[in-house]
Amino acid sequence: MYDVNEVRKDFPILSREVHGKPLVYLDNGASAQKPQAVIDAVTRVYSDEYANVHRGLHYLSNLTTEHYEAVRGIVARFLNAAEEDEIVFTSGTTEAINLVAYGWAAPRMGEGDEIVLSVAEHHANIVPWHFLRERQGVKLVWVDTEPDGSLDPEKVIAAITPRTRLVAVTHVSNVLGTVVDVKRITEGAHAAGVPVLVDGSQGAVHAPVDMQEIGCDFYPITGHKLYGPSGSGAIYIRRERMEEMRPFMGGGDMIREVTKEGVLYADPPMKFEAGTPGIVQTIGLGVALDYLMDLGMDNVAAHEAMIVSYARERFKELNWLNIQGDAPGKAAIFSMTIEGGGHAHDISTILDQKGIAVRAGHHCAHPLMEHLGLTATARASFGLYNTTEEVDKLVEGLELAHRLLG
Amino acid sequence: MYDVNEVRKDFPILSREVHGKPLVYLDNGASAQKPQAVIDAVTRVYSDEYANVHRGLHYLSNLTTEHYEAVRGIVARFLNAAEEDEIVFTSGTTEAINLVAYGWAAPRMGEGDEIVLSVAEHHANIVPWHFLRERQGVKLVWVDTEPDGSLDPEKVIAAITPRTRLVAVTHVSNVLGTVVDVKRITEGAHAAGVPVLVDGSQGAVHAPVDMQEIGCDFYPITGHKLYGPSGSGAIYIRRERMEEMRPFMGGGDMIREVTKEGVLYADPPMKFEAGTPGIVQTIGLGVALDYLMDLGMDNVAAHEAMIVSYARERFKELNWLNIQGDAPGKAAIFSMTIEGGGHAHDISTILDQKGIAVRAGHHCAHPLMEHLGLTATARASFGLYNTTEEVDKLVEGLELAHRLLG
Repeated sequence: MYDVNEVRKDFPILSREVHGKPLVYLDNGASAQKPQAVIDAVTRVYSDEYANVHRGLHYLSNLTTEHYEAVRGIVARFLNAAEEDEIVFTSGTTEAINLVAYGWAAPRMGEGDEIVLSVAEHHANIVPWHFLRERQGVKLVWVDTEPDGSLDPEKVIAAITPRTRLVAVTHVSNVLGTVVDVKRITEGAHAAGVPVLVDGSQGAVHAPVDMQEIGCDFYPITGHKLYGPSGSGAIYIRRERMEEMRPFMGGGDMIREVTKEGVLYADPPMKFEAGTPGIVQTIGLGVALDYLMDLGMDNVAAHEAMIVSYARERFKELNWLNIQGDAPGKAAIFSMTIEGGGHAHDISTILDQKGIAVRAGHHCAHPLMEHLGLTATARASFGLYNTTEEVDKLVEGLELAHRLLG
Repeated sequence: MYDVNEVRKDFPILSREVHGKPLVYLDNGASAQKPQAVIDAVTRVYSDEYANVHRGLHYLSNLTTEHYEAVRGIVARFLNAAEEDEIVFTSGTTEAINLVAYGWAAPRMGEGDEIVLSVAEHHANIVPWHFLRERQGVKLVWVDTEPDGSLDPEKVIAAITPRTRLVAVTHVSNVLGTVVDVKRITEGAHAAGVPVLVDGSQGAVHAPVDMQEIGCDFYPITGHKLYGPSGSGAIYIRRERMEEMRPFMGGGDMIREVTKEGVLYADPPMKFEAGTPGIVQTIGLGVALDYLMDLGMDNVAAHEAMIVSYARERFKELNWLNIQGDAPGKAAIFSMTIEGGGHAHDISTILDQKGIAVRAGHHCAHPLMEHLGLTATARASFGLYNTTEEVDKLVEGLELAHRLLG
């Protein structure tokens, strides 16, 4: 039985106030708060168990290395990857997608080769591909979302041509909340011999994900959105793709031997992890993922589905509120505008005065905003610790905003 | 007056034991321990002041952004950069040098262009240039160290030819402790119109550094070696070089506008900072640098110079001990082998049993090890909290190792 009030006690920041009101944190799509277990792990490492990894033979170095390397197995279990060596640590999804762009895509794509993207991608899954367009003449092929905010997997598959070298789609839209059928897309793309990158930055947060079931080639996750430390993350890379990749960043740890004349690289995954890694934040990520697996991602998904359905009902009362995206099974992300008035920034500011944290802006998704004909929305994105009472507070806050701005 | 015993109290890990003995932490060259102020800052942000930066308009996001962006000024002050916009945040020196390699060097170097390096470089300042050799036919030109471990700046300058596009040298050797006259090298290189990257990963730790005095173009620093959090760092990039650079990683925050057709990039330094940054570790880095500036880097330098001179005296008693590098004014880094026996790994293991943490291996400096005719050394690297008593313990430990292995 998932007891959200018990869960909330694990997150110290949730008991603070903002502007004299209890914090209602609905900016989880940007970054999630951290449970005490993660904070304690970070403190413990720095206070009592810290040294550099992979490099010493002394006690503390061995201890830190053990804690750090254990996280690879935790991430593999969280994603149900076939092998833990298919996990590469990164500082987050942005670095992870750039690793794929520089390490895998750049050396194998030229003038006229195509990458299929949905219009709902986050800039992290757009700008690295624009680099290939600018620098190598790669063509970006865009697939629009449907009026209800869903993404038709068949339209993504239909966009594949003999020149397509990669399909790069998000698992869950950070604006619309749409859950994309990435399994079907992967099936269709693989039938055409095209690898698939699924941006898991939002997807891995809201429901269980399974690399072996989805079957995709690349799946980055963002530690700080998964209730882990900032600057942590990882990417699942299918073994065959890893073998095809050249290194991205050069430095210590990713080499076997360096001479004046050349370099022998380490085997994957180390080949893609240069320099001293984000030791403590990665250890913290492991604790966060263990925390999520202890709660059960199915339970998290069920709780958030309940929030979605409650919020949908409450929002129906507000006939001046426009919600972007109403795809079936959508995740707990609501991008909103108020009819006839009120810039998203003003809505956000009014909510903030009530202690309610939402994000306002383009949400790093310019092409989608353009497709929707908007410049900005106010976005309430819910996490595993949010409650129906907080939905009620949001509704009250929106009513106030409507009165003041509408 | 620098009171090392007071300073030690700021570092909680220094009061722990290893194998029943008080920890003697002499692996600072790999990574330094953290003062309580840094640990507290990290805990405080996660417990009470955390949100994503640059993206929200709500209270917590504004608060975190303020704390985060203030660090740019702290780094600029620490390095005495002319402008705080010459500071780019990175996850450490490895990412920083790759930023220079991908963002500045790659687009402007071709077949036969030359990069001058010293043989004493860390792999972080070698492998990114080997990428350019492998991928673009750039030639690496190596300058050897002198028998005493020093690097003659005039030899570096003499290695410059009309094809030289960059000089990349370390400020302080992580194996020899040699302090390189990077000001003279920069002067000579600039007279030939060649930009200079100085690897400050060790250099910024041991003494005050001044970008305006050195005059170099690129100067990366490593947060975790500067008593700051893992995964933190920054690079100073001279304004003119920044203007010449193309972006390295693509994603959120580094753009002004993204459409289906193209990208308008943000102005530097944001242009080079993609995605959600290492928020909390960067805030922690700011606290660490403030801590260092409060102690006074001159005082730190004086304390470490005292340690060096004490250690040199004590080591003289051990006529079976070989120290690599004895350049005048060397930093507190001693790479050692025992004559007639004892692999570095065995020395390290024996010392570890006495609670003494040193590093054994090639120290990510293969070309230097080859130049020295060694495969491994045991390295004792001292920090601002180490004492002459700890030098004595090291000497005792080495005597034991010599008896057991010699």
